[in-house]
Amino acid sequence: VHASIAQRAASTEAMLAIFSDEAVVRDALAFEAALAAVQAEVGLISGADAKAIATACVPPIDFDALGSAAAHAGTLAIPLVELLRERIGGSAAKALHKGATSQDVADTILMLQVKEAAALIRRDGARLRLAAARLAHDHKGTPMIGRTLLQAALPITFGLKAAGWMAGVGEALERFETETGTIRLQLGGPVGVLGGLDGKGAAVATGLAKRLGLPIDAAPWHSRRQGVAGLGASLAILTGAAGKIARDISLMAQSEVAEAFEPRADGRGGSSAMAHKRNPTGCQIALSAAVRTPHLAATLISALPAEHERGLGGWQAEAPVLADLFRLAHGAVAAMADVLEGLQVDTQRMAANLGAAGVGVDYGEAERLVEELIARFGKDA
Amino acid sequence: VHASIAQRAASTEAMLAIFSDEAVVRDALAFEAALAAVQAEVGLISGADAKAIATACVPPIDFDALGSAAAHAGTLAIPLVELLRERIGGSAAKALHKGATSQDVADTILMLQVKEAAALIRRDGARLRLAAARLAHDHKGTPMIGRTLLQAALPITFGLKAAGWMAGVGEALERFETETGTIRLQLGGPVGVLGGLDGKGAAVATGLAKRLGLPIDAAPWHSRRQGVAGLGASLAILTGAAGKIARDISLMAQSEVAEAFEPRADGRGGSSAMAHKRNPTGCQIALSAAVRTPHLAATLISALPAEHERGLGGWQAEAPVLADLFRLAHGAVAAMADVLEGLQVDTQRMAANLGAAGVGVDYGEAERLVEELIARFGKDA
Amino acid sequence: VHASIAQRAASTEAMLAIFSDEAVVRDALAFEAALAAVQAEVGLISGADAKAIATACVPPIDFDALGSAAAHAGTLAIPLVELLRERIGGSAAKALHKGATSQDVADTILMLQVKEAAALIRRDGARLRLAAARLAHDHKGTPMIGRTLLQAALPITFGLKAAGWMAGVGEALERFETETGTIRLQLGGPVGVLGGLDGKGAAVATGLAKRLGLPIDAAPWHSRRQGVAGLGASLAILTGAAGKIARDISLMAQSEVAEAFEPRADGRGGSSAMAHKRNPTGCQIALSAAVRTPHLAATLISALPAEHERGLGGWQAEAPVLADLFRLAHGAVAAMADVLEGLQVDTQRMAANLGAAGVGVDYGEAERLVEELIARFGKDA
Amino acid sequence: VHASIAQRAASTEAMLAIFSDEAVVRDALAFEAALAAVQAEVGLISGADAKAIATACVPPIDFDALGSAAAHAGTLAIPLVELLRERIGGSAAKALHKGATSQDVADTILMLQVKEAAALIRRDGARLRLAAARLAHDHKGTPMIGRTLLQAALPITFGLKAAGWMAGVGEALERFETETGTIRLQLGGPVGVLGGLDGKGAAVATGLAKRLGLPIDAAPWHSRRQGVAGLGASLAILTGAAGKIARDISLMAQSEVAEAFEPRADGRGGSSAMAHKRNPTGCQIALSAAVRTPHLAATLISALPAEHERGLGGWQAEAPVLADLFRLAHGAVAAMADVLEGLQVDTQRMAANLGAAGVGVDYGEAERLVEELIARFGKDA
Repeated sequence: VHASIAQRAASTEAMLAIFSDEAVVRDALAFEAALAAVQAEVGLISGADAKAIATACVPPIDFDALGSAAAHAGTLAIPLVELLRERIGGSAAKALHKGATSQDVADTILMLQVKEAAALIRRDGARLRLAAARLAHDHKGTPMIGRTLLQAALPITFGLKAAGWMAGVGEALERFETETGTIRLQLGGPVGVLGGLDGKGAAVATGLAKRLGLPIDAAPWHSRRQGVAGLGASLAILTGAAGKIARDISLMAQSEVAEAFEPRADGRGGSSAMAHKRNPTGCQIALSAAVRTPHLAATLISALPAEHERGLGGWQAEAPVLADLFRLAHGAVAAMADVLEGLQVDTQRMAANLGAAGVGVDYGEAERLVEELIARFGKDA
Repeated sequence: VHASIAQRAASTEAMLAIFSDEAVVRDALAFEAALAAVQAEVGLISGADAKAIATACVPPIDFDALGSAAAHAGTLAIPLVELLRERIGGSAAKALHKGATSQDVADTILMLQVKEAAALIRRDGARLRLAAARLAHDHKGTPMIGRTLLQAALPITFGLKAAGWMAGVGEALERFETETGTIRLQLGGPVGVLGGLDGKGAAVATGLAKRLGLPIDAAPWHSRRQGVAGLGASLAILTGAAGKIARDISLMAQSEVAEAFEPRADGRGGSSAMAHKRNPTGCQIALSAAVRTPHLAATLISALPAEHERGLGGWQAEAPVLADLFRLAHGAVAAMADVLEGLQVDTQRMAANLGAAGVGVDYGEAERLVEELIARFGKDA
Repeated sequence: VHASIAQRAASTEAMLAIFSDEAVVRDALAFEAALAAVQAEVGLISGADAKAIATACVPPIDFDALGSAAAHAGTLAIPLVELLRERIGGSAAKALHKGATSQDVADTILMLQVKEAAALIRRDGARLRLAAARLAHDHKGTPMIGRTLLQAALPITFGLKAAGWMAGVGEALERFETETGTIRLQLGGPVGVLGGLDGKGAAVATGLAKRLGLPIDAAPWHSRRQGVAGLGASLAILTGAAGKIARDISLMAQSEVAEAFEPRADGRGGSSAMAHKRNPTGCQIALSAAVRTPHLAATLISALPAEHERGLGGWQAEAPVLADLFRLAHGAVAAMADVLEGLQVDTQRMAANLGAAGVGVDYGEAERLVEELIARFGKDA
Repeated sequence: VHASIAQRAASTEAMLAIFSDEAVVRDALAFEAALAAVQAEVGLISGADAKAIATACVPPIDFDALGSAAAHAGTLAIPLVELLRERIGGSAAKALHKGATSQDVADTILMLQVKEAAALIRRDGARLRLAAARLAHDHKGTPMIGRTLLQAALPITFGLKAAGWMAGVGEALERFETETGTIRLQLGGPVGVLGGLDGKGAAVATGLAKRLGLPIDAAPWHSRRQGVAGLGASLAILTGAAGKIARDISLMAQSEVAEAFEPRADGRGGSSAMAHKRNPTGCQIALSAAVRTPHLAATLISALPAEHERGLGGWQAEAPVLADLFRLAHGAVAAMADVLEGLQVDTQRMAANLGAAGVGVDYGEAERLVEELIARFGKDA
């Protein structure tokens, strides 16, 4: 899987693979083959045609040629269908892509990618949440100075700080989970009325959804994109929850504060000029993602007022932006999970900084609050 | 209630009242009085002190002086508490605001406003959804040309277009409803550990929440702001759903298309220079809101990586931005509800435009899809 | 001038006055009176009509009624022209607003406001730049630890840090100055062809521009809004330059770092719960503005692809957003100018923190760089 | 050069090559070699060492290994310098990268890319501007209906519409040109004081800048990023100017309006399902870019309040975002240049639509305005 250095630095190999061109083409082939298979089942095309289509819908595909043609056409589906029709030949060529439109392919591919990507978010999101839960539990009663508006204020415990991180991530993951409800098949044909299917649209859509492992919606959603926007917003908010942790740790890791540090990793966090430095590289990834993702989420919302049955410019902007959101969110979540799992906590320094503040050691009901937050968000599901 | 002309043009009187300074001060007084009452109940302060506080926490308040002091202090709570303490005097003055911090007041006020504002969104959101449902039902079988990438494509029905509007609004309202789960009391004291309450923090928070009519969270959420960001995103997405309707109608109302028109309203939609014109003023409100709200939603997400127990700059940006989101979203939703309720539909022109496209009249399974969408989103809850 | 507490906390009285409704109405009256006067000069209307118009175009105006009508109409010009025509009566009523359209009034008012607002930005921008220059000069050779990625790195001088602040503000002010070149009269009539003026459009525009003290453009710019977007971006970037200073100072003011502090101001920076705290309130204003303004600037850019000769939704979103940008930018710049003018610098603590880093005291060519930056950006123009 | 299908569809091969990893590595090698050469000239390292370094700083580089290491390290410079040092060996290895820091390499590479990219923007920007100028000239007196708020209003000429496009692009290109003044060498060493260069920092910077063909600034600008943000904003605004043209043409190309059409291009604008359709693919590219770029520009502005001498998260977000801005802006500008150069204009339909509006044919001073705009923006520089 090819990805630029910048993308690799900001994301994970697994997520990059999910949103790669290779995956796009693989899913497009799967879509066309499954569509033909279902249409043969319901009698819209012959079994022989479906078989010929299935045979054609496999790699290898001349990737560079297809990419050029897709870039030129402004859509993948047209040159791909053309290429497949040449490959198939005869009457089966006509049976390919029957009743479908480019956007059916593009949106369904996107949903298949999102489904896979969501699993990664869930996995590393849980890892981050549970790493915070462990810190919350272990440091329930570890006193430190609470800081407001970047000024020393009154005592808290480190466990409460970590419990807040956990809860922030937990809330964000719940929202993300809700938004994954938007994952669904797209099949409507050119204008979303399932035309050209002899009234068997419902059966075709149901069958296709089943074959591709996607839920089905009440109707095509070509220009009803709230779900995509909601998914994007939930990823940006999750990134913000990771960024909050990164903000706190990077502040605690300041030389003059020195309360917590990222784990050492070979080849990471070094400086090209200062051997003594240890940079908070995980926090950097998360904070950098948190600078970018709110704007990416807003892009998807900006695109909502689409023109008529398929918009011009808006929805075409969605797929690369949603991919960026998944890449950055997962990069941030995975990086901070690594950081929290190996976090080096200096409780003596916490005590010393607290002492220097001269505000006593009474941290109120911090321990009870940690317990309540763990009860709500700290479970290993 | 004072509001600028620009705000009045973009929102509704009812929503402007909810987010007015008058409401802020009223709710701040209610917070302090309720806090004292609860603290008297659990024995933290005397009943007499609570009574003195209750007596003081009523209008009139010298609004201009308070506003100046709040603007100067950078927070409302400090000068308000000072003013009230002067008013109260004696030992009761010390009992005021016990265990609370400025952000407890500010966030709780915000939540009280959001609770009221949500009712307006629900009411007019339902109005918009149902007006679209009626159009979907009435025009289930009214043929028109479907348009993709702004080009005539193939036949649909106007009912299906309206059903898409309904579903978009319906989905957005469901997301908004979910996000209102974030409405909750804020009470944590200076660093969120409920200090200075003799271990009675849970009782005080529970009692205060009950008196103010707000749910309570597992713990204070001073620097855990995912809920606010999620609410903002849901409002921007709802505005986008209204904007989608406005986009379609404004395109259909073009002189050369002439398929649908906003209802006439005296003093609205006129031109200062062209008496013959009839401008789509409702659509203008919604589209204008849809340009602004994605960026406002992103602002709230940008603010998430807050520093420590209370951030510097981030959360202070939230309240005015969330207020703008409610103002603009409600302006858009209410305007489009008015538009759809009085929409003038020219079915003959629809038929003529369809005929001119020369693509036949077969609108596939449009009617079935309308029925499925109405079954899902068209109910009068 | 009325403004909400939130607006007053984030901006300045002077800037709030410039973008008030009072100013809008005052400028609208000035526009109509000046237009009539010029048209009388070139013989398009009679001198008597112009006189009658001038007499009518003065306060008092029933503000509330006008605001309601403007909010309802979606534009100020229509009800204002109607109100004035009633006031004027007779043939002169017809001469009012001749050849003009609502957007001519709205845009010209906006430009008159921007012209006044730019003077404030210039004044306090220079104040901020010069306060930084003074710190740069005074602390050219004051050693402190340089910090990268929030980690102690190698020595710099405080003067170099301040010189960087100065240069950032200086660059941002130069960009803003360039963008003020967009300030210009708007006069084009309904579709921007200066119709209905007997071919005297050039003369009318020139005369009107002169009377209102505005430059004139090669042609009306109703749907050519790059200038407004550029102005907004320059204000957001200026706010970012102020936010950079606020970020550094708030980090230096941390209890564990303690190298610099905002000046004390009565009634500011206090805590409602912790008397010992001294919050960086000026930095809070600037950082809060820096969270909001990038998104507001993007809003104006989003609005650029306007429909035909006057867009629907886009340009109507501009005026309140540009006003917010001026309010927030000026609030940030003025707050940080106050902070830098009274900044308390602890050079001993700087030395101690540097010593603790154990990286020597060699600050390279810092002093030369300070001098070069002062030569470039430190002059009192 | 590898690029994803989505990137290729939205940009141009030439721009993708400029911001490719291949270019990044090539420029990094050039930076290190030139730095060594200059340091030999001023006597900081030996000529032999500089020679050894120059010999090492050439391809081939194990791209995949370097990419992995860079992604892991969070910066390209560290693994690249390590790899080169291994290659070089001996004392010369120590002489490599002397006095430089990772950000010096990263920022200088970015500036070298921007310099090349600016040439492309200029070239195709001029092409777009001149194509609009030609239309303005040819159709100076071609009457059509002017439209405001998407409603037929009064007559204009098509030349005036095109002149507005030209002027919008012209203004945007002037702003971009001003912002290219930010292109400059970055060299400051770890904390920006040019340490470790024996006081010869000025000479080294000047010599390096000359060898790399870049201007030099008064001082390093590691955490003074207004220039990058300004460049980004100017690209988003330019994209908006292209998007405005796309908006108008896509509206004019509507089946019911039919006044102008994109040129036909084989393999482009087709539909996978409707052979009769001709989609405005060039407009789609520009409008899609115009949805995304405002948010990308805002990202760069959001990153401005950087921490101390090198920020954490903010500047690391810049390079990929600025690259996206160049990619999308150039894609939009080049696409619309193609569209305008081959635009098919139906003046008879314009006349018919104008006639149908029933508002006469007087287009006021449109012709004069076209001439004035051409005089200002229509020259072939």
